Order: sequence, then structure tokens, then C-alpha cells
Amino acid sequence: MIDQDLNCPLLRDRAVMAARGDGAFDVLVAGGCVADVATGEVRAADVGLVGPLIASVHPRGARGDAARVIDATGGVVAPGLIDSHMHIESAMVTPHTYAAAIAQRGVTTLVWDPHEFANVAGDAGVDYARAAAAAAPVRILPQVPSCVPSAPGFETAGADFDAATIARLLADAPAGLAEVMDMAAVTARAPRMRAILQAALAAGRPVNGHARGLTGAGLQAYCAAGVTSDHEVTSAADLLEKLRAGLSVELRGSHAYLLPEFVEALSGLPQWPQTLTIATDDVFPDDLLASGGLDHVLSQLVALGMPSMAALQAATLNAARRLGRPDLGHIAPGRRADLVVFDDLKRFAARTVLIDGAAPVAGPAPAPPEGLSGSMRLPALSPEDFVLRADGAAVTLATIANPRFTAWGSVTAPVVAGAVQLPAGATMIAVAHRHGQRASTPALGVLTGWGDWRGAFATTVSHDSHNLTVFGRDPHDMAAAANALVGSGGGMAVAKDGAVVAHLALPVGGLVSDAPLERVAQGFADVRAAAGTIVDWAPPYLVFKALVGATLACNKGPHQTDLGIADPLGGRLLRSPIVGQGESASRDTASQ
Amino acid sequence: MIDQDLNCPLLRDRAVMAARGDGAFDVLVAGGCVADVATGEVRAADVGLVGPLIASVHPRGARGDAARVIDATGGVVAPGLIDSHMHIESAMVTPHTYAAAIAQRGVTTLVWDPHEFANVAGDAGVDYARAAAAAAPVRILPQVPSCVPSAPGFETAGADFDAATIARLLADAPAGLAEVMDMAAVTARAPRMRAILQAALAAGRPVNGHARGLTGAGLQAYCAAGVTSDHEVTSAADLLEKLRAGLSVELRGSHAYLLPEFVEALSGLPQWPQTLTIATDDVFPDDLLASGGLDHVLSQLVALGMPSMAALQAATLNAARRLGRPDLGHIAPGRRADLVVFDDLKRFAARTVLIDGAAPVAGPAPAPPEGLSGSMRLPALSPEDFVLRADGAAVTLATIANPRFTAWGSVTAPVVAGAVQLPAGATMIAVAHRHGQRASTPALGVLTGWGDWRGAFATTVSHDSHNLTVFGRDPHDMAAAANALVGSGGGMAVAKDGAVVAHLALPVGGLVSDAPLERVAQGFADVRAAAGTIVDWAPPYLVFKALVGATLACNKGPHQTDLGIADPLGGRLLRSPIVGQGESASRDTASQ
Repeated sequence: MIDQDLNCPLLRDRAVMAARGDGAFDVLVAGGCVADVATGEVRAADVGLVGPLIASVHPRGARGDAARVIDATGGVVAPGLIDSHMHIESAMVTPHTYAAAIAQRGVTTLVWDPHEFANVAGDAGVDYARAAAAAAPVRILPQVPSCVPSAPGFETAGADFDAATIARLLADAPAGLAEVMDMAAVTARAPRMRAILQAALAAGRPVNGHARGLTGAGLQAYCAAGVTSDHEVTSAADLLEKLRAGLSVELRGSHAYLLPEFVEALSGLPQWPQTLTIATDDVFPDDLLASGGLDHVLSQLVALGMPSMAALQAATLNAARRLGRPDLGHIAPGRRADLVVFDDLKRFAARTVLIDGAAPVAGPAPAPPEGLSGSMRLPALSPEDFVLRADGAAVTLATIANPRFTAWGSVTAPVVAGAVQLPAGATMIAVAHRHGQRASTPALGVLTGWGDWRGAFATTVSHDSHNLTVFGRDPHDMAAAANALVGSGGGMAVAKDGAVVAHLALPVGGLVSDAPLERVAQGFADVRAAAGTIVDWAPPYLVFKALVGATLACNKGPHQTDLGIADPLGGRLLRSPIVGQGESASRDTASQ
Repeated sequence: MIDQDLNCPLLRDRAVMAARGDGAFDVLVAGGCVADVATGEVRAADVGLVGPLIASVHPRGARGDAARVIDATGGVVAPGLIDSHMHIESAMVTPHTYAAAIAQRGVTTLVWDPHEFANVAGDAGVDYARAAAAAAPVRILPQVPSCVPSAPGFETAGADFDAATIARLLADAPAGLAEVMDMAAVTARAPRMRAILQAALAAGRPVNGHARGLTGAGLQAYCAAGVTSDHEVTSAADLLEKLRAGLSVELRGSHAYLLPEFVEALSGLPQWPQTLTIATDDVFPDDLLASGGLDHVLSQLVALGMPSMAALQAATLNAARRLGRPDLGHIAPGRRADLVVFDDLKRFAARTVLIDGAAPVAGPAPAPPEGLSGSMRLPALSPEDFVLRADGAAVTLATIANPRFTAWGSVTAPVVAGAVQLPAGATMIAVAHRHGQRASTPALGVLTGWGDWRGAFATTVSHDSHNLTVFGRDPHDMAAAANALVGSGGGMAVAKDGAVVAHLALPVGGLVSDAPLERVAQGFADVRAAAGTIVDWAPPYLVFKALVGATLACNKGPHQTDLGIADPLGGRLLRSPIVGQGESASRDTASQ
């Protein structure tokens, strides 16, 4: 949606008159308690609205003159929730569908980094995101993706955003530069990233971060470059270090196993930092359908012991201030009438939602552009594409050891008839470029510590270049899963015994589907369940989600990309995992 | 001072390198504890600076490589204090002198409403304020005075700022529109004030308030018009109502007797509101010299029981966020290096002050413009000018009853030889226009409840039109005091038994002196002491300060102006206090 203008003089005239008592309100939210995120009080009060403005917050029952009265008896009137960092694409549905699902739950503002669409379709992806935002029933504030691709030179995405492109896009993006993922380039002041950061600083836009694994001097250097937020907090200690570095921390719900230690660490501080906001980052479609988005994160945090008001404040006033949006995040006269009546501040179950003073309404959803609707720019693959060829009798392989917090490993493997035979416990990962920027022959790598695979999984949701990524040991399974996606315009597929057993088509950019949320959620749940039959998950790290991050080259440690095994922070790119001939004494040991 | 550019790429290069450890810091503040206004912690840490940037905040002793090391052992390194609302003119010294006095005390940013200069000299006053701000040793952020004059039609100032003037001035004033004092016009949507407010909203500038005495529907209407701050809080209940209305409250030190109830009220809230900032508003020169400014307010608040961190946070991070200045108010890498080493967070005694990474340095002070240097545009007055003429034997007089919270009163008085004889307990107030906009014949009014006067006091510091204002009962004393000021280019004078006994010349606009602070402080103290010999103060309301507010027409209740007794909120302007002939039964009773 596009913000209604709060500065129209006639609107202000009406609001002032209504506040004075010389005119009726358009809407009166009466009988409830208002959650005051400034004072921390929850107090009996009614809220009178005129158009998109809050005109008056006054004692309960003081006024009754309104065109429409919303009964908030027993409920809490709160500012609409602000999701301070998220990627709609992670829910595998269109922005329209995501917004419709979330609008009824009290999430009224999304700060969206359309990073996945941008990595696939470039400018066209951003344009689509903006058009979709304008038509959505909730307020979507698109940021400008900073890292297209996330690790230049180490992967090939569908587009490449240089500083000039980013400067142009920032002119219309007050929400600023989205998570700066290429940490190595930031702290090295690599020319391309330096120019991108300087473009954002010169434009006066907030520079948002992705400080995964950064600590000590590296973190300070990252901040000194101008980055002012982070959501990649991976432990209580990491969270505290980020807050102490002055970063605006977008506490995210996408890694729920971390929330208990986050709440505990925050509870130990002398105060709840006003630099804390709440974010979803990524929500899978079945989770979105079942539990919602930011509202669910809040309910989890409160269940873990975070005071309701601290959680609500983080998700409203703190976020609004971070965004430089004084019109949002506060139930007070003169502010924008984004408000929710919750049953309580524990479960955050929304009873009524008003955005700009009215029920959320969607405009017509834009059609995806050509760059997204035909994004599988590669031919079918053959089993041979998934065979690692070598000479001699045995090879030493560099491996990507351990999911999520990856490290360099190595393993030796015999070679039979020119084909490397993976030892037990090792898994093949293949990444085929699919954007037409270069040849699509898969780059092959080897994983260790990623479980025992009995089939193959293929996905075009594969952060952040979203090339066609395939996991498995059997070339026939791998080709079957991959080719299901080549045929369906992208998505996710599981193959076993040579046949596809689950398949979710995501034809919009190979990232999302325009099907209804229920269907996508079911399709995704089926794929996830099927994937669970071919490898045994070992939470918290070896989980389904880890698969879509195996290619996230900007993060610390090695990751597989279409160019090979990439480790930008370590300054290493291996075109092939074969690092030596013959036997080796080292077996699966992390070298870093 | 003018902010140094933090976005220079070479500066960021150096800062990132130093943070990484690949270059030395320019300055290292070592051995102290850092006050972290985000987390609320005070923790051992060193701070490395590069130019005007904070490059790194790291464990104590981790680094030693710096061109200069500042030993902070035993001290607390805090962000520079931000005075969120103030009028330099109240200290009766030039901006240059004020800033020099305050810079050594850790106040690094002043949000200055140059309202007094503007009311006297209009555009030239604002231009002077801006030139003075640019040359000052601290960061001064001038706002655009909104109410020149404060109550149009009820008083005549030296200038008149319409919406077009204000829109033009706002283009260069990110600190926004200064306190909107003409509350009656705001809530009535009077065309002139409506246009001024809309100009500020359209420019996207913060609209700052002066919500003196506003409560209930009136306060809501004032906020609905777009005002988002206030500093005119007069009681604990008033403070809480303003915070609950969503206003950013600039808790001010200028009315110290209110601070205990403010701290008590705030302590009773569930949390310290992030919408709370701290301000001085007005500091007299002797107080400035003896105790400082915002630093003194903080020490008072903490002595009254406000937690140090809550007070510091209000004066730093909260203010920076209100101002939309993420570079200020926080000791963190990538932020502006405005920092203070305090001995402790109780007395806030500054040991070292750095602004933009260096000791505060002043540029050459600009010369006051002609509009300020020759601002007494009226001839000498005669005793006859202070005689209230009437026919008949007696008159009924409308009076301004009670200082500070004024109310309408009335009194009867005999007339002898055509001259009204004030009864005991009544005092004459005379306001002579001095800006050359109209005739300078004084408008006469009568005060009741303002003490028993035995001499006269004259002042050209007389909010907000700063006309020549004279208090007393004896026409000869009144003329003597007034003419001392006509001769000295304005100021304050006390006369007794026909002779001037104390006189402070304030030749710059009749508001400030270009003499050193010590001399102005002494001169002011002498005048204040002399005034105490001609009338007995009865705090908290009948105090010297009340005299300069007797003319503040925008406030609730009657005030004397050059046009008569003005009560804009009550919709009343009496050209003469004589409201009836003959005896009246009512004696000195408030009618409102």
C-alpha cells in the first residue's frame, strides 16, 4: 500500500475539530485499553480516528460521536506491528499472498529486502517488488538489495548491482540499503562494496547489516564503515556484542532455538535497549499459514519471559524510530492510524486491524515480469553432470564440513573408472548456474557432516544466487530432482530410487508460487517431509533449512556456488574439490 | 560549528583500517568505562577515534596505537549531552559566549530556538543566529521560530513571520519548527498558524510545541494538528498527560522547583520513556556561570533519584533519535565522535570534551546585524506616560491577577485630578512598543497579587515581543528605569526614589550583551538583587523570573502587551484596564 498523505490541510482540519469535540470521529475504538509504548502503561482509553489519522486518545467513554464504533472491550489497542527485516520470498508465495496472510494478524508494516527477486531478475525484480508493495494490503517498505550477488567473484547471480544502480534505486527507498552481506568486502574496503556503502551514506539512507559471525575488531570495522543494524545473531554472546557495538538488532524469529538464550541475555541487561527491534527474516509457507509471522515471534518471546511491553515496544516504537518514521509505532494523536486490537499481549491474537484508519485492502496484484516468470535458463541435466571425474586411484577432497556453521574439511576417496566414489558420510552438492550469465554445467562439491543421504534434493531457492542446487549421492536421483525443477520453472524436489517423490513448483523466479498459501504450504510441507525420508535431521544445525543456506557464500566458512567452493572471508575459491591425488592421512578434519 | 562530513570515503577508509588494527587511531580514550545508552551498562572499554568518527569501542587495554591517548582512568566516557530545547538569549550573552561556557561542561549539542532574536530583528535575527551557530565551538542546531509574534493581533513584535517566510527558513533547518506557542491559533486552525504548521509538515520537519496549560481535548487537538513535543510541563500530572499524548517531552531545568515531582512521577511509570529528553529552556547568566546548563539539570535530576543512566539516555540517545540524528548520542563505532569524560554520572563534572573528535574550538564570532545593534526604536519616556488617566471619581479596573498562572481580576480605584490612584497591593505594568512598527506610547495595565512595590523595574527582555516593559507604582521611578534602557540600547534597570540603582545594558537586541559572561552575570545578579529590594518575592510564583513572562500573551490567562491586556485563549483584548466608572462591589476577585 502507499501511505495516505497525513499532511493534507483539510484532513488536519477535520482531525483537530474532532479532537476538540466540534466534529465526529470517523472511527472510535472504544472500551479497550491502550498499550502506551512510550510510558509502558496499558490504560483504559478510547481512540478516535479521522481518515488515516489518530485524532484523539481520551478517557474511556468520554466520547461517543463517530461514524463507526469498534468495540474493543476486553482487548488491548496496540500500534500495528512492524517487521523490521524480512524477505517475502522465503514464504514462497507472492507479496500479495504474504501480505493478505499477515494483515489479519496485526502486522501492518513489513521492511522487505527483495533480495531474492533481485538476485534472480535484477532491476526487474526490484520493480516488481515495488509494484507489489504498492498494491499490498499492508505497508511494505522495500529496501534496496546491497549484495547482488552476495559475494561477487565467488558466485554468479542473475544480476549484478553496482554502486550506480544502487544509488539510483535508493533515491526512492527511504528504508535504505538492505543487509550488507559481503562482510569481507566491507571490512577490506573492496572498491565495489566501498562504492555501494558510500552511495548509501551519501544518500542519507540507513545501511542495514548482516554481520554473521563478526566479532571483535572485524565487527568494529564493519560498523566503522557505516553499517548500523544486524539480524544475524547466533548466540547470546553474539547478541550482546552486537548491541554493545551500537547496532540496531533485528531480533529474528527464524531461528527459534536461539530465542530462549536471547531472552535470558536481554533480561540480564539493566534495561531493554531501544535499539532492539523484532523481525521474522524468513518464514516458511506452512509456518506462515499455521502461526503467522511477527505476531508469532512476539508470542514466543513473551512465552519465554520477555515482558509484553518490551516486546511490543521493540516491534513498534523502536522500529519506527529506527526507520525514521515518527508517524508509526505509537497510539497518539497526530500519528498514523495503524492499530490493532489484540485479545491480550501474550498470544498477540488480533481481533481487529486498521491500517491508515481502515481495514486492510489489497489492490490488484502486479504480474511478475519476464525476468521472474521464465527464470530457469538452463537445459535438462544428465546423471553424468553429477559425477566427479578424477584420474588415478584416489583423491584428496576439500569438503564443506558441518551445516550452518561451515568449516573446511577434507576426506580421501577412491576413484573407480575415472569417477570419484564418495565415502560413507559424504554427500555431493552440485550447483548449476541457471540465469544465463554463464555455462550451466554444475560445479561439484562435497559435504561432510551433513548426514547420510539416501536420495536427492534439488532446489532453486538457494541463497543468494539461487542457482539450481542439488544434494545427494546418486547421480540418477540428483538428475531426476534437478530436471523436475528445470521443467517446472524452479522450486524444490525430492527424488529417491531414481524417481521424484515430492515436488513444489515455484515458477515465479524459481522462488515463489502464485498459488494460494494453503496449496504452497502443503506442497512445501510435503517436500520437507520427503526430504526427511532421505536424510536424518539432527537439529539445531542439520535441519531442512540448512540446505538452502549451503550456497550462502558471503558467510564465514566454505560454501558451494556455481563457481566452486567459495570462502570469501578466507580468501579462497576452489573450482574443484579435488585438492590432491592419492591417499591422505587427514580424514574429515576441519582446517579452519 | 558545522558538522564535519562523516561520509568522506577516505575518512571511512582510515576508520575501518584503524578498527581492523591496520592503522593507528588519531585519539584513544583509554582506561575509563563507557556509558552504553543502548544496553544501560557502564563497562570497561576504550574508544578509538579517527577524525570526527568513532572507529572502535574495544576491551580496555586491547589497543595502544594512537597519535594521542587521553587517559580516562576512573572516569566515565559518555556521549556528548544534547540540550533538546533552549534559548541562548535567556543567558543574556552572545551565542559565542554561551557556547564557550558550556563546551567545557560536556554539552556538545544545543537545539536552539532563536526566537528572541527573531522577534526583535526578524530575518536578520535568524541569519545572525545561524552565523553564530556556524562559528560556535559546540554543535548548535537552530530551529525556525514559529511564533513571531507569539500572539498575532494581541501584541506587536519587531517582525512578523508568515508561512512563506517560515517555509523558506525551514529549508535549511533540519531541527524543525520551534515551539509553537500560539496554542489558541493552533487548535482554532486560524489561517496564519494553520499555514505555518502545514508548511512544516510539508517540509517533513519536526514540529515542536509549547503546550502550556493544555489538557484534555485541547491537548489532543493541539497534537492532532501535528505538534510532537512540549517542554511547558507545569506539574507531575501535566507531565504524565503530555507523555501519554505521545509528545516528546523536553524536561526542562528552568523551573527547578518542579523537578522533584517530575522525578517522582516518572519513577512511578513502568519504564523511562524513550520520548523523554532533557532541556534547559532558559538559563540566567549567573546560573550559567555558577552551575552550567544541561549538565546541571542532569546532576539535579540524579540527586533527586532519577537513575543516572535514565538521565544520560534522555540527554543523549533519546534526543538524537528525536532529532533524527543517528550519528549523535551514542558511543559506538561509526558514530560521530562527540564524547565527554565525566568524573562520574552523579555530578556530571566533565574532565575532557571532544566534539567531532577534537577539543571544542570557536571560529570568529559574527557581528550582530543592524536590526539587533540598534533595537531601541523609541524616544525617552516621561513620568506622565505612566499615569493612567480617567474621568470621574473612581473606576473599575480589570487586572492581571497572580504571577505565572495569571487570571483575570478586578479592582476599584479612586481617581484624583484625572489620575487613577492604584490601591495598595496593585502594581502598574506599562509596555512601550520599541521596534518602530507603531507608536511607542506605553499601554498601561494593572497587576494584583504581584507584591507590594516600592520602586520600578524596567526590562526589554520581555517575552516574547520584547517591548520595553516597566513595573512599579511611581511614575518617576518608572520613567527613570525605562529611560536608562532607552539610553543603553536595552537591558534591565531598577529605580528607586527617582534614581536608577541597578542597570544591566543588553545592547544586542535589548536581549544580550557582548561583554564577558562574568560581567553579565554580575550585572544581572545586581539587578536581580536590586529588584529584590523593591518588591518581596514569594516563591515559587512571585519570583524575579515571573517579571519577564508578564507579557507572554500566548499563554493562558491575561498578559500585558503593547496593545493592551491580551488573552488570546480567552479571546479578549482590552486596550485599557478601565472597564467601568464608579464604585464596584468586586474587589480583586478573579473572574476567570
